[in-house]
Amino acid sequence: MQAIQDSYPDNVAHCYGCGSQNAHGHRIRTFQEGEETVTRFTPEAYHTAIPGFVYGGLLASLIDCHGTATAAAARYRAEGREIGSAPVLRFVTASLSVSFLKPTPLGGELEIRGRVKELRGRKVIVEASVFADGVETVRGEVVAAEMPASFGN
Amino acid sequence: MQAIQDSYPDNVAHCYGCGSQNAHGHRIRTFQEGEETVTRFTPEAYHTAIPGFVYGGLLASLIDCHGTATAAAARYRAEGREIGSAPVLRFVTASLSVSFLKPTPLGGELEIRGRVKELRGRKVIVEASVFADGVETVRGEVVAAEMPASFGN
Repeated sequence: MQAIQDSYPDNVAHCYGCGSQNAHGHRIRTFQEGEETVTRFTPEAYHTAIPGFVYGGLLASLIDCHGTATAAAARYRAEGREIGSAPVLRFVTASLSVSFLKPTPLGGELEIRGRVKELRGRKVIVEASVFADGVETVRGEVVAAEMPASFGN
Repeated sequence: MQAIQDSYPDNVAHCYGCGSQNAHGHRIRTFQEGEETVTRFTPEAYHTAIPGFVYGGLLASLIDCHGTATAAAARYRAEGREIGSAPVLRFVTASLSVSFLKPTPLGGELEIRGRVKELRGRKVIVEASVFADGVETVRGEVVAAEMPASFGN
């Protein structure tokens, strides 16, 4: 299945969180499912905060990259275009806020679900949550901005 | 020199961002310098966002762990105690917000500087910024909460 990140041009696909060209990174993949976007990711054993729980910085990172993908998908949709059709859209993060509602257990797959809160010019505001075994543990918001044309050159 | 993280008990020192017991992690070290706290960290070449710039998830992670260290130091100080004196203080993140003011160039040491905004019961609110070559590129706020006693057991 085609992930939103599969549409990113190779010259801007090096992101540690979501770039297909980054061998060291998380390479998350995000899919549109109805009105929501979904990323599934299994942290490594060393992605720990306090023993038994997932590192908050990783959870913030997942929400971040999930948010920029959701923003791109939303803009394609608003323009009535196929994801990846020219001109290709790529978003970066202007700001990120994350609330850790409860500790996220380490040891299984996490699901990140997002939705668009607002489309505003070159910016898209995305809400996203992390679920572990169906329980929401983290809630975040990403303000994503269309990438300046000078990036990646 | 003694870092704030050196005071964390071994059973809760596995954090991917700042735990001395995590061989895979960033193991950041934070120091009190007058009224501010300072962490210096050099990202790896693969910690990239768009080529040439530092990955936002890493920057958020640095602010996060810098914030919890700053919170612990502030509480010791408010209680008139040496850092690491019993009972040992360890903070976790309740919420985190980060604004990416401009792209952070990849390739050199970053400086994270923090200060306490508010001490409120078991919570400490910390403001922190990332500087690259003396230029502020990221600004964030961490609400840190004293770790529940059940953690790490």
